[in-house]
Amino acid sequence: MDESSYQRISMTLEEMAEHDRVFGALAQRTREFIDASLHTVVDHAEIEEVTAMLAAMTSRLTKEADPGYLGVKIGPDGSGRNHGNAVVGLRNPFAPPLKVEKTKDGTAFAAFRLGAAYEGPPDLVHGGVSALILDQMLGEAAAAGGAPGMTGRLNLTYRRPTPLGELSAKAWIHEVDGHKTTVKGHILGPDGEPTVEAQGLFILPRWAREALAAAKAKKAGHAFE
Amino acid sequence: MDESSYQRISMTLEEMAEHDRVFGALAQRTREFIDASLHTVVDHAEIEEVTAMLAAMTSRLTKEADPGYLGVKIGPDGSGRNHGNAVVGLRNPFAPPLKVEKTKDGTAFAAFRLGAAYEGPPDLVHGGVSALILDQMLGEAAAAGGAPGMTGRLNLTYRRPTPLGELSAKAWIHEVDGHKTTVKGHILGPDGEPTVEAQGLFILPRWAREALAAAKAKKAGHAFE
Repeated sequence: MDESSYQRISMTLEEMAEHDRVFGALAQRTREFIDASLHTVVDHAEIEEVTAMLAAMTSRLTKEADPGYLGVKIGPDGSGRNHGNAVVGLRNPFAPPLKVEKTKDGTAFAAFRLGAAYEGPPDLVHGGVSALILDQMLGEAAAAGGAPGMTGRLNLTYRRPTPLGELSAKAWIHEVDGHKTTVKGHILGPDGEPTVEAQGLFILPRWAREALAAAKAKKAGHAFE
Repeated sequence: MDESSYQRISMTLEEMAEHDRVFGALAQRTREFIDASLHTVVDHAEIEEVTAMLAAMTSRLTKEADPGYLGVKIGPDGSGRNHGNAVVGLRNPFAPPLKVEKTKDGTAFAAFRLGAAYEGPPDLVHGGVSALILDQMLGEAAAAGGAPGMTGRLNLTYRRPTPLGELSAKAWIHEVDGHKTTVKGHILGPDGEPTVEAQGLFILPRWAREALAAAKAKKAGHAFE
């Protein structure tokens, strides 16, 4: 991964909206299918028919395919498009997806529902799924506060079991030290009390620091022209 | 969650094998469909047809459904069946699924492949997905060594980016202190070098400690009969 990973897509705003509507619906219907597959008790013959249909549909999708990953693209409006992201990705059926509300002082909030696909112990959210969500939330808060980065360290404390169902999560910047940002956050249970607490260290990669420094130097140079 | 969450299923070994074959295939085809949906570049009309078919298939599955979660059941052979588990669940399309090799002295190993659905930064495994996998691996090692428990604390150190593709993970018990077990582990990149390191504290819940103590007392009582 380097600067070239973040490519601008060649779509108009209208084309982008239509693309997102079509692929967003596919991912959403896939999420519903996954949930149904974990609750269904229809007979084996029915399951086998559905399985065969699914395989045929996969063949239709793979007829024209790009072997690369979705990554992060830049829209015509300058917006970041991380549609493959495992937590917030519009096109990723694994992602609930979280819709994260952010503020410029580095806070992030999301309300979401975790169903059968996120189970660990019986009826509870998998401890690792809580970690997955908090990693994303802490990273979102860091980026929102102007100090983006990749996870360097993540420390989780599990206070109480997290039940499957309606939940929320919060994160906020605790400290910024150059290219290192410390962020805190938690998952809140249906009663609004924290179930899992997190602290993370996010580090801006060197290539990104150099790109930012070059952009700043160029700007400073212009000031003297 | 309590002892009653772990129910014995009423199937013969043959019925269980057939059930697992049928539902395992459904989950596997679903994983392939998800992967295809993240790589496809077929046109919008094709995507919309597939989306409509998927919605119809969901309706077939939900005709007879159990609103409860899969949880952890006990098979007729005494084996644990956590088929809904987000990391190792046979029926969970979200799970790669990891096939974990364990030893009685508390080690766990798994080789696995993470595709497009596990992406975070471009071409890389989501930092939270690494946490998800390590949480499960550390818990498996604790349980394998006879000291099962729920995650109390999980500390992750990200040494290098983890590329999507073929990976492996290891975990081992570091220390057992009564009902608390400290476990260490890491994810290994394609070159066999650690990318993410983890240390976790796993705690056996009180209800499980009491159930185990009661079982031991009963056994001791029998010895005096």
